[in-house]
Amino acid sequence: MSGMSGQVYDISPAEGGVLAPAGFAAAGVAAGIKKRPGARDVCVLDAGTPVPSAAVFTVNTMAAPPVEVSRAALADGLLRAWVINAGNANACTGEPGLADARAMAARAAAAFGCDPSDVGVASTGVIGVPLPMDRALAGIEDAAGALGTSAEHDTAAAEAIMTTDTFVKQAAFAIEVDTTVYTVGGMAKGSGMIEPNMATMLAFVTTDAPLTPGACSALLGTAVASTFNRITVDGDTSTNDTCALMASGAAGGESIGPGHPHLPAIAAAITRTCAELARMIVRDGEGATKLVEVTVCGAASEQDAEAAAREIANSPLFKTALFGRDANWGRVAMALGNSGVAVDPSRVEIVFAGITTCEGGTAVAFSEEEAAKALARDELEVRVDLHLGPAEATVLTCDLTYEYVRINGEYRT
Amino acid sequence: MSGMSGQVYDISPAEGGVLAPAGFAAAGVAAGIKKRPGARDVCVLDAGTPVPSAAVFTVNTMAAPPVEVSRAALADGLLRAWVINAGNANACTGEPGLADARAMAARAAAAFGCDPSDVGVASTGVIGVPLPMDRALAGIEDAAGALGTSAEHDTAAAEAIMTTDTFVKQAAFAIEVDTTVYTVGGMAKGSGMIEPNMATMLAFVTTDAPLTPGACSALLGTAVASTFNRITVDGDTSTNDTCALMASGAAGGESIGPGHPHLPAIAAAITRTCAELARMIVRDGEGATKLVEVTVCGAASEQDAEAAAREIANSPLFKTALFGRDANWGRVAMALGNSGVAVDPSRVEIVFAGITTCEGGTAVAFSEEEAAKALARDELEVRVDLHLGPAEATVLTCDLTYEYVRINGEYRT
Repeated sequence: MSGMSGQVYDISPAEGGVLAPAGFAAAGVAAGIKKRPGARDVCVLDAGTPVPSAAVFTVNTMAAPPVEVSRAALADGLLRAWVINAGNANACTGEPGLADARAMAARAAAAFGCDPSDVGVASTGVIGVPLPMDRALAGIEDAAGALGTSAEHDTAAAEAIMTTDTFVKQAAFAIEVDTTVYTVGGMAKGSGMIEPNMATMLAFVTTDAPLTPGACSALLGTAVASTFNRITVDGDTSTNDTCALMASGAAGGESIGPGHPHLPAIAAAITRTCAELARMIVRDGEGATKLVEVTVCGAASEQDAEAAAREIANSPLFKTALFGRDANWGRVAMALGNSGVAVDPSRVEIVFAGITTCEGGTAVAFSEEEAAKALARDELEVRVDLHLGPAEATVLTCDLTYEYVRINGEYRT
Repeated sequence: MSGMSGQVYDISPAEGGVLAPAGFAAAGVAAGIKKRPGARDVCVLDAGTPVPSAAVFTVNTMAAPPVEVSRAALADGLLRAWVINAGNANACTGEPGLADARAMAARAAAAFGCDPSDVGVASTGVIGVPLPMDRALAGIEDAAGALGTSAEHDTAAAEAIMTTDTFVKQAAFAIEVDTTVYTVGGMAKGSGMIEPNMATMLAFVTTDAPLTPGACSALLGTAVASTFNRITVDGDTSTNDTCALMASGAAGGESIGPGHPHLPAIAAAITRTCAELARMIVRDGEGATKLVEVTVCGAASEQDAEAAAREIANSPLFKTALFGRDANWGRVAMALGNSGVAVDPSRVEIVFAGITTCEGGTAVAFSEEEAAKALARDELEVRVDLHLGPAEATVLTCDLTYEYVRINGEYRT
């Protein structure tokens, strides 16, 4: 994922997810919100005390009540814990839904003896159905009493936020700066929506770096812009999308705010963790058989590059061609032309999985056999060079398949 | 299609398509551009002399050479004829493609003894492949020599612009104003793209009304805004989209320009013809099993209503739910929230095929059985009332099906 990895820093993979950095405990329990008996569906992630935190939320104007509650809780830049449930999104539930989200925070606060405004709330699952609050609240109490820091706790937490994701999404990275090792870890859930009406993406990132609230916010914003905001499965943004960062400070040392020399390295590790989780979400996209990096380079501005890459990455015609292993550059040209971005058609170059299919805006002869072989890979790049400027951006997408239609067309009952 | 029919005028259906109004001749011949032997693929539509004309073209910045040639030809508001080929879009073909489009106009002009700038050119079909010019030019000569005004000529013309449309798209309407009868006719081709790499929509509308060039342009613009610009199959806009209007004046009477009392009635007939053709295009959408009117009402402005309806109509999650006969209002709420339009979530009402599923932004109990039955219809309406203002707009869409994936995912060779 070009532009997403911190090439200049020596970032090493670490084990686990949100519990990889010190200073956090978590639990994932089965509260009976999901239909499948025994499935974990309530997660608590606890920093033990209010710590610098930040989050970015869906821009959907139908944002769910938990988003509203968490936004308010983060006004002071500090959170002690997140409570998260899967199986029910508490979205389109009106005032009662808002009261439910507040009650979730209050129950966790009571268990911890902290203020409800120190607890963030996230929900994912079915839209428009009231949360079974007795189960949700009992689950929060169970989870708050079962916190731990083991690998099992880490995985149980990540499992409890899944809906119909086909695999657990965890990532962690460590980076050493001036003899201090900082660790960043994260968990996410994505877009496997066998039950329709689902409100989707959640991601939680932790670090032991002693970041200030301002640094949390800045670093998360930067990381999300080039990672979670550059993936697409179907171009639809859910009502519940939440990506949060908590900084425990357990790595020690002075507080790290804007301008601190360690900040760029920590930023790189956070971005790398987000990139890894974002990639997993696309990889697990509904019905997807392949992950495709759409890179637009040679653009006049990064904004242009991103807009063009996004338009291509969201085109159903392009996405079905990927499924068909078809180096269908005409559809890329069409989508590019629809992006509204400055383009000189006579300079456009389009490369599918290393095979040049269009140069100077017109067809280039290529071996269809070789192309079909290259496009059979489950990860590949489609690269468009506008030959107009220095800017570049990548958006990750997946193919549009029969399985996507089956999953989302299947009747609910 | 609310807002598209001229309720206040007595518009009656007429037989045929572009030849329904007097003053036009047409031909559709087989020139060997399409793969299927004997398939008609070159059409000439002739007004006998340059007549007031207008066209609207794709806003795709990778617009094809024929679009560029036609745009220039229409600078003076007059055209004598259109030459159209199917099977090859002459798109992404660079300078040679531009020369080819000009040669097509020149060949027709030579046959008619008129200026090449009086001939519009349109192409539809595969992108990025040079036109077989010997066949195209021979086809134009054949067609120019085979012009006629019979029903057979009318249908042959409409057939010759099809690519993989599954049915011929023709419509005609007549309207009487102050004892004068004006007739409007049209043909269109849409989005059946079994061969990928296709550049798609074309529509040609004729009338015998003695419109001025300015009136042609104004009436076509208005008609397209509420018809062809309010349909979507997959949200992708082709490089070749062209919608043209020619006014022969054969109905007689004084020239009809802006402000003329007959203008609103003629406008209604033109809009009605365009609405009918637009509806046929969605009806014949790739893999579609149903046509769905997405109406957003109670909006603060028509712009808001249209933007919201369009976002819903283009949502893959919504479109797969339609295929699954699922009154999945959560996806409508999600898409509405993504439209960027002013919404008060607590007022939103969502009605699927007459069944209220959401009121005051939250779920309403409904019979799933009844809903599944209603959604089994092949034409239905999804109505969203924002309860914020007086404005309303409708966008036509179709469902997203296995067949769409099959058609567009099938390998080209």
